[in-house]
Amino acid sequence: MTDGHFDKITLIGIGLIGSSIARAVKAKGLARTVTISTRSQETLDRARELDLGTDYVLDAGEAVEGADLVVVSVPVGASGKVAEEIAPHLKSGAIVTDVGSTKASVVAQMLPHMPKDVHFIPGHPLAGTEHSGPDAGFAELFQGRWCILTPVHGTDKDAKKKLAAFWEALGSRVDEMDTEHHDKVLAIVSHLPHIIAYNIVGTADDLETVTESEVIKYSASGFRDFTRLAASDPTMWRDVCLHNKDAILEMLARFSEDLAYLQRAIRWGDGEKLFDLFTRTRAIRRSIIDAGQDTSAPNFGRPVADDKG
Amino acid sequence: MTDGHFDKITLIGIGLIGSSIARAVKAKGLARTVTISTRSQETLDRARELDLGTDYVLDAGEAVEGADLVVVSVPVGASGKVAEEIAPHLKSGAIVTDVGSTKASVVAQMLPHMPKDVHFIPGHPLAGTEHSGPDAGFAELFQGRWCILTPVHGTDKDAKKKLAAFWEALGSRVDEMDTEHHDKVLAIVSHLPHIIAYNIVGTADDLETVTESEVIKYSASGFRDFTRLAASDPTMWRDVCLHNKDAILEMLARFSEDLAYLQRAIRWGDGEKLFDLFTRTRAIRRSIIDAGQDTSAPNFGRPVADDKG
Ligand SMILES: NC(=O)c1ccc[n+]([C@@H]2O[C@H](COP(=O)([O-])OP(=O)(O)OC[C@H]3O[C@@H](n4cnc5c(N)ncnc54)[C@H](OP(=O)(O)O)[C@@H]3O)[C@@H](O)[C@H]2O)c1
Ligand SMILES: NC(=O)c1ccc[n+]([C@@H]2O[C@H](COP(=O)([O-])OP(=O)(O)OC[C@H]3O[C@@H](n4cnc5c(N)ncnc54)[C@H](OP(=O)(O)O)[C@@H]3O)[C@@H](O)[C@H]2O)c1
Repeated sequence: MTDGHFDKITLIGIGLIGSSIARAVKAKGLARTVTISTRSQETLDRARELDLGTDYVLDAGEAVEGADLVVVSVPVGASGKVAEEIAPHLKSGAIVTDVGSTKASVVAQMLPHMPKDVHFIPGHPLAGTEHSGPDAGFAELFQGRWCILTPVHGTDKDAKKKLAAFWEALGSRVDEMDTEHHDKVLAIVSHLPHIIAYNIVGTADDLETVTESEVIKYSASGFRDFTRLAASDPTMWRDVCLHNKDAILEMLARFSEDLAYLQRAIRWGDGEKLFDLFTRTRAIRRSIIDAGQDTSAPNFGRPVADDKG
Repeated sequence: MTDGHFDKITLIGIGLIGSSIARAVKAKGLARTVTISTRSQETLDRARELDLGTDYVLDAGEAVEGADLVVVSVPVGASGKVAEEIAPHLKSGAIVTDVGSTKASVVAQMLPHMPKDVHFIPGHPLAGTEHSGPDAGFAELFQGRWCILTPVHGTDKDAKKKLAAFWEALGSRVDEMDTEHHDKVLAIVSHLPHIIAYNIVGTADDLETVTESEVIKYSASGFRDFTRLAASDPTMWRDVCLHNKDAILEMLARFSEDLAYLQRAIRWGDGEKLFDLFTRTRAIRRSIIDAGQDTSAPNFGRPVADDKG
């Protein structure tokens, strides 16, 4: 059975990612029962109000009992604790996966707790928004987006196929990578951009010569493009920084070195060097549009300022 | 007459900005004649093919003869040369403006050439895309966007009103600032973001451990948001860096200082500091959306990857 269906799915964590999975599972009818568990009674109540699953259980251990597929969708720093809680209750043959944005750390935290008769296959859907919580999710989130699985050595092939089929049923395209490589790739395509975006928005916030209201008023000139990333969930990004430290520091060092070179070219008025630097980056943009990863429409078809008055 | 109409308008430079002005002037019927001049015969021919004006003249001096409004839309590094060329041919009482992204340097380059009986009023429409050339323009470019005028001391009030009315007729909202302040504001809302975007795309291009095709494939995770800015015209951005050097270097120094602090927090695993930094930036995003400068729709309503297969 590799059609992405499971008899019982348990979702641990029901924020943006967990609730998007819940909605997609329901929309596509991928499970007979969907048990939802989350840290707080408040979020659990909200999940019930939103009718995201079939059962609602605060205790994570109890929630995974009898589950064929368990998906852990909590900040990466909490994955060890969750693994410890659920481990004794997992059914033999169950597939356990996660959605964390860093993978080596998640494996280090979760794998030691996993019983031998359970298939632990880490994963990371490359899909998200800057919003969080159970209300932020939507069933189409994973449509056309990549999901990277980072199976550990000796993973059962059938279990991997089943999990891949599950993500494909949610609309994703599935890739496989080793954990270390995943963490390097994500450090450059996601973690560094978010950190840089947080930083530039922070810098703008701190100026004496330019007011915040000026920054906001004229933000469409470039600044705005960074603010979406910089509005992402602080807990999630704190954990990403703490749990992919080495790869992130490596990318930051490269970035800073390159920036020092650029800064020097500006200081010395080296127009030729600047022109060269500003030319070679165009090709990447073109490839991204050709690969269907972005649109070339001016402004991504955003509404212009006066749409709102 | 402050309705934005002029008898004869001359446009010097007919790239993205110049041709957008030409199209908007035509669409709104803001002039009896629109004379177009540009550096190369090739671009001039293209402007004629696109039917952007009423007259096409290679020589800039000849083109401005009898003009009531002259708009210079060339890279800021070329504004001195253009001012020198057109100065002897300007009609008494003509309004001369520009659209350059830096202002103190443009004033320093152009003002000394301007005859006493001409109204020179520098301007900067905060509107653009990453594309360039006469084909890239469109009449709606300025709709709902700011145009900042930076009049020099003693500027005639009526002339200023007429120019403001012109930009308003193109759909812009008009603001006024002194040149130095303009250059600082733009350094943070536009120049720094573009430079940072160029830099991060450059860094990604240089890695040995992560391939370019991986960067492209997974770019939707954050990286993509930078590539649009980094695809902007190299000549324009070389000139911006050379001509707003002091303000840009100041902002770069602040940015690098802040980044070093953030980097240290990552290195030392200081989760609290990271959480604080990642929290305060959310407010700015909210203000930008409230101010109608961006949309909160996930992904700006961009098509997802599989729209293209
Ligand atoms: N957001 C994205 O763009 C994105 C994209 C791909 C992957 N991811 C990954 O997906 C995971 C979840 O992110 P999300 O955006 O869905 O987050 P979210 O919307 O903030 O939801 C977080 C969920 O985890 C629970 N949780 C938070 N702290 C916890 C803790 N210390 N112990 C146990 N449970 C805890 C929350 O429970 P309560 O509400 O009950 O406290 C909630 O159910 C993260 O690992 C993140 O790296 C996120
Ligand atoms: N692009 C934006 O997003 C944006 C936004 C606001 C303001 N601006 C400002 O608008 C101005 C024009 O930018 P653009 O985007 O319209 O550029 P563009 O599309 O590249 O067009 C440039 C125009 O200037 C002419 N030109 C180029 N180099 C010249 C030189 N050395 N001497 C004389 N003419 C020269 C070109 O003539 P030929 O084609 O005949 O060589 C062309 O007509 C710049 O000052 C820029 O800072 C741009």
